[in-house]
Amino acid sequence: MIYFDSDYMVGAHPEVLIKLVETNSLHTVGYGNDKFTADAKRIILSACGIENGDVYLLEGGTQTNAVVIDRLLDKHEGVIATDTAHINVHEAGAIEATGHKVLTLPNHDGKLRAEDIKEYITSFYNDDTHHYMVAPGMVYISYPTELGTIYSRHELEEISKTCAEAGIPLYIDGARLAYGLAAEGGELSLTDIASLCDIFYIGGTKCGALFGEAVVTRRPELLPHFVSVIKQHGATLAKGRLLGVQFATLFTDDLYTRIGKHAVKLAMKMKKGFVDKGYKLYIDSPTNQQFFLLPNHKIEELKKVASFELWGPMQKEETPVRFVTDWSTTDADIDSLLNAL
Amino acid sequence: MIYFDSDYMVGAHPEVLIKLVETNSLHTVGYGNDKFTADAKRIILSACGIENGDVYLLEGGTQTNAVVIDRLLDKHEGVIATDTAHINVHEAGAIEATGHKVLTLPNHDGKLRAEDIKEYITSFYNDDTHHYMVAPGMVYISYPTELGTIYSRHELEEISKTCAEAGIPLYIDGARLAYGLAAEGGELSLTDIASLCDIFYIGGTKCGALFGEAVVTRRPELLPHFVSVIKQHGATLAKGRLLGVQFATLFTDDLYTRIGKHAVKLAMKMKKGFVDKGYKLYIDSPTNQQFFLLPNHKIEELKKVASFELWGPMQKEETPVRFVTDWSTTDADIDSLLNAL
Amino acid sequence: MIYFDSDYMVGAHPEVLIKLVETNSLHTVGYGNDKFTADAKRIILSACGIENGDVYLLEGGTQTNAVVIDRLLDKHEGVIATDTAHINVHEAGAIEATGHKVLTLPNHDGKLRAEDIKEYITSFYNDDTHHYMVAPGMVYISYPTELGTIYSRHELEEISKTCAEAGIPLYIDGARLAYGLAAEGGELSLTDIASLCDIFYIGGTKCGALFGEAVVTRRPELLPHFVSVIKQHGATLAKGRLLGVQFATLFTDDLYTRIGKHAVKLAMKMKKGFVDKGYKLYIDSPTNQQFFLLPNHKIEELKKVASFELWGPMQKEETPVRFVTDWSTTDADIDSLLNAL
Amino acid sequence: MIYFDSDYMVGAHPEVLIKLVETNSLHTVGYGNDKFTADAKRIILSACGIENGDVYLLEGGTQTNAVVIDRLLDKHEGVIATDTAHINVHEAGAIEATGHKVLTLPNHDGKLRAEDIKEYITSFYNDDTHHYMVAPGMVYISYPTELGTIYSRHELEEISKTCAEAGIPLYIDGARLAYGLAAEGGELSLTDIASLCDIFYIGGTKCGALFGEAVVTRRPELLPHFVSVIKQHGATLAKGRLLGVQFATLFTDDLYTRIGKHAVKLAMKMKKGFVDKGYKLYIDSPTNQQFFLLPNHKIEELKKVASFELWGPMQKEETPVRFVTDWSTTDADIDSLLNAL
Repeated sequence: MIYFDSDYMVGAHPEVLIKLVETNSLHTVGYGNDKFTADAKRIILSACGIENGDVYLLEGGTQTNAVVIDRLLDKHEGVIATDTAHINVHEAGAIEATGHKVLTLPNHDGKLRAEDIKEYITSFYNDDTHHYMVAPGMVYISYPTELGTIYSRHELEEISKTCAEAGIPLYIDGARLAYGLAAEGGELSLTDIASLCDIFYIGGTKCGALFGEAVVTRRPELLPHFVSVIKQHGATLAKGRLLGVQFATLFTDDLYTRIGKHAVKLAMKMKKGFVDKGYKLYIDSPTNQQFFLLPNHKIEELKKVASFELWGPMQKEETPVRFVTDWSTTDADIDSLLNAL
Repeated sequence: MIYFDSDYMVGAHPEVLIKLVETNSLHTVGYGNDKFTADAKRIILSACGIENGDVYLLEGGTQTNAVVIDRLLDKHEGVIATDTAHINVHEAGAIEATGHKVLTLPNHDGKLRAEDIKEYITSFYNDDTHHYMVAPGMVYISYPTELGTIYSRHELEEISKTCAEAGIPLYIDGARLAYGLAAEGGELSLTDIASLCDIFYIGGTKCGALFGEAVVTRRPELLPHFVSVIKQHGATLAKGRLLGVQFATLFTDDLYTRIGKHAVKLAMKMKKGFVDKGYKLYIDSPTNQQFFLLPNHKIEELKKVASFELWGPMQKEETPVRFVTDWSTTDADIDSLLNAL
Repeated sequence: MIYFDSDYMVGAHPEVLIKLVETNSLHTVGYGNDKFTADAKRIILSACGIENGDVYLLEGGTQTNAVVIDRLLDKHEGVIATDTAHINVHEAGAIEATGHKVLTLPNHDGKLRAEDIKEYITSFYNDDTHHYMVAPGMVYISYPTELGTIYSRHELEEISKTCAEAGIPLYIDGARLAYGLAAEGGELSLTDIASLCDIFYIGGTKCGALFGEAVVTRRPELLPHFVSVIKQHGATLAKGRLLGVQFATLFTDDLYTRIGKHAVKLAMKMKKGFVDKGYKLYIDSPTNQQFFLLPNHKIEELKKVASFELWGPMQKEETPVRFVTDWSTTDADIDSLLNAL
Repeated sequence: MIYFDSDYMVGAHPEVLIKLVETNSLHTVGYGNDKFTADAKRIILSACGIENGDVYLLEGGTQTNAVVIDRLLDKHEGVIATDTAHINVHEAGAIEATGHKVLTLPNHDGKLRAEDIKEYITSFYNDDTHHYMVAPGMVYISYPTELGTIYSRHELEEISKTCAEAGIPLYIDGARLAYGLAAEGGELSLTDIASLCDIFYIGGTKCGALFGEAVVTRRPELLPHFVSVIKQHGATLAKGRLLGVQFATLFTDDLYTRIGKHAVKLAMKMKKGFVDKGYKLYIDSPTNQQFFLLPNHKIEELKKVASFELWGPMQKEETPVRFVTDWSTTDADIDSLLNAL
């Protein structure tokens, strides 16, 4: 069986695992006050081209979104996101549980549009009753999106400008950032991301770590008393150095870049293989998630050799499916899959 | 330098680490629906002597307390705990952040007393205004306590009976459960704990795991929709099998018991060594945390060879200190420490 | 100047005011434990045709929605409502502030459709990832809606049946219930409302009281410990008998019915007058809120004699406007308005 | 029967009631944007000697405390109060429901002591683990206290100074402020209160209004977006002018002062009467709440002519009782009570 269900089905990239083993018996202070965490923060800020910023290492994506958004918003504020956003659909109401509304706008291939945000904010402040409405307090996007798509430089610059003009922070969920940075046709580097948003997180869990997400900001003043807020959310790891060791490794010798490129290269090979054989794309994704529209009988056949997800309920004749690559996917895996088509 | 600061300064016990390495490249489904997690749950329930119960694997102690207590309490209820309880002092208000009050009673060597709980509940319901007060909705204790002390069988039975009579669940925080079970003079086994409370957690982070806590209950009906509530708290680990692998290992070949006994044996040796040399106990603890009252000049001397914590601010002449052992502490470490006294 | 801005611009109906004055110097126990409140509850239950139900008197609409919804939902649940619902748009995030998501469906003339609810719930439970999504825990509608429209008997029966089949409560916001019950062509009586939903509130503030809303349920088990939950929300009135006196009066000698009929009769006269003069309806409302599409120059003219609200921002040539009647509106007011057209 | 149970058993002071009746049929805009509310705010600020401040009119005490404290505290902060504070005991966990901890210190005759606050804050910041503890974010006191006692000028100045030095706001709950200002031996005027704290509320409900509390601050910057936060708490009154009318009346012709003096004068007469007859004071209160220790048989006798509360459960021989006066209490009421002794 070859596995394409998701990018969190396998453990850590070997280079990360080796470092965890090497450092296992060392004694360090807890809660992220250790030297590995300090190293990771330094290396990450440097990779992001940020001089006076801050990095916080958390454990998972939903947790990170909830902690960051809870910290950024004032009590009367909500977060603007697409209707398909992870925080709106698949986090079991974690944002609302902290008391805040997700203000949804329609997605376009999974993406928010700057003009929609602008229009929303303008309408809001033009409404005489806006004091009794939830104020737009920040914007959430993900890069790549839930659908594997990416923002062009122009698109992100426009969103960034819109947020700056409205005086609200732009936050990027980078759960799969490695694959966004390596996207075919992608125009944005890590330093671009870091400078075009106010705060973002570098996904570790889906990009080669056992677990872990690195919150990065060039505006530390956005996160006052963040250490306490993290603890209050139960998001402080006692053996915090585990996160430090992993992120220091991911950002040494370009490992994070290599993981992204590897997975995207194989995803592109997979896409070409499907298209060459006449199958339809469900979404044209330039990253490690690939979406096809397959005849139901073909799905049945493929299930015998490969594990992958239906994208929604089974349809009458053709059904959308998703295949995901990661650091552990091999050229041979793709070949086997394509042979089985 | 020898380290006695805490039991979360070092990585995982080698047997646990080896299993993580061995399983690293396997593909499994995420979010704890894998076979390692299923194995861990089965083995834990068996070790607890529970036939029809449930186990949930979470990441850390504060997180576990917040998720469990938030789930157990109704909106108008609070949790009874000692004034020194971890949830009352050292979790940055995580319980209140979920909307619930911690109802404090005085501690006796870190412990709650059944008669105090009974008196509190009786007074509450005798108060004509109790509908406008926070109702006692559950009881929280830890085993061992923050001060390393343990409950006798009689003490725990009385608390258990008091809770049952009041119709409220008893929850035990077992962050250091391994050391409580191995305590010198301890009267309670894992099956005793499992049957005398309604729900408890088996600490992994401080007892040999990289991270992880196993919530166990013989009353699954106490935790409806718990999978969703865990997710809402951002406490669902994507690569959930990491917790399964660790806990399955900890409860194979008595590893959890061995870790507890090892650390307690060395702690007892340490205590005897201090007492033999004429030093005073600050608290007489039968577990892996040892508290002494040391002359300040002696603290200065010891700091050169050993790392440990002051227990509170430095006093005029003598100051309480804490030394903690764990799976990584060796006989030689204790010898070195005692030699340096 | 004649006032049609809203139905909360004037004090209490004279019969209500007189009772408040008459009882002002009496001494009663506080917090709603007085005999006036007991009377009001008894009279309301009788008017609703409920034998074993419960009534709770609160102060305002947003407060009532937040308290009731917070009580009805479990932690992982949200409330289904239209996108135009008051709780979704105009309550400053009060529902989210209690930790719950508003799950929106498109409105049809301000109304929810049973088939949309059914489809939403079915899709939810067919989604393999629904444990990580917010579960539909109840349905919220208002009668009449934000747009003054009403549900037919068939429509409400279908929604009622859909909720019953899904095992979730149906809650009706009756802020303007008097006008819904008196609606032209309306098919639903108070006893119909009471039996077709699980819980609803009878609006006082907009229907003749100084303030106050009466939560009514034929299923008291839906609101455990509600007295404490109300207090926790800061929604307990110290001099609770003020609510009792008002609601007892509103439900004596059919005052509530008379208020509704009076306002609707004048609203219908107004609508006919506008239509007869060739003006377009923006929405065809059978209740006390009337919506017209007026040429902007006509709006300017009318503003000299009457006070009313634009419904949204000023448009290029014609703009929607809203006129609202209440107990204090007179035939002469309508005549003056129509003359000024 | 004469009533001394509490100061919320009777309606509004006649002068207040008359104004409500006089203005009943006027049409005004809603939500407190009317001219009566504007008048009330202006008059109150003037009475408080505040030039550039703000006033917000809310409905009840628990509501006011929850809204203000929720607004003042950052997410990681709690509120310092005595163990007997209303917010700690009798608000059904309303503060915790907004996510914040009540940090309790021992009371001294119901009062907080400046030195205890100072010591608490100093210890907190000296604790190395304070980032994982709830930070002291404000101080709550009531004037008069739950026990009817008052702060001396020196005591309040010291608390005020302590808060200022710590950089946290001091908030005074003035549910019974009229009686505190009129207290026998009281040293503090309304302008003193207004200048010695950062924010406080002037109680209406217990001091002559039907309902209502006026939040006053000389530091408007403490309450950003407060209109939205009030709405979110469901604490916005639709017919807001009801509050404006009442408070404008209470602060016209010294009515608020007259109410306070009247009730305190009769309370002092009552106290003297009890003491002259040899009864013991339970607490020596200079305000409208009087606490005596009465033989149980005397309590039985008195219950035949007067209504009053036991202060706690019935004791063996003597039991504490509370008698409360208000605007409606007469000289004759006191005479009858004393005759019945």
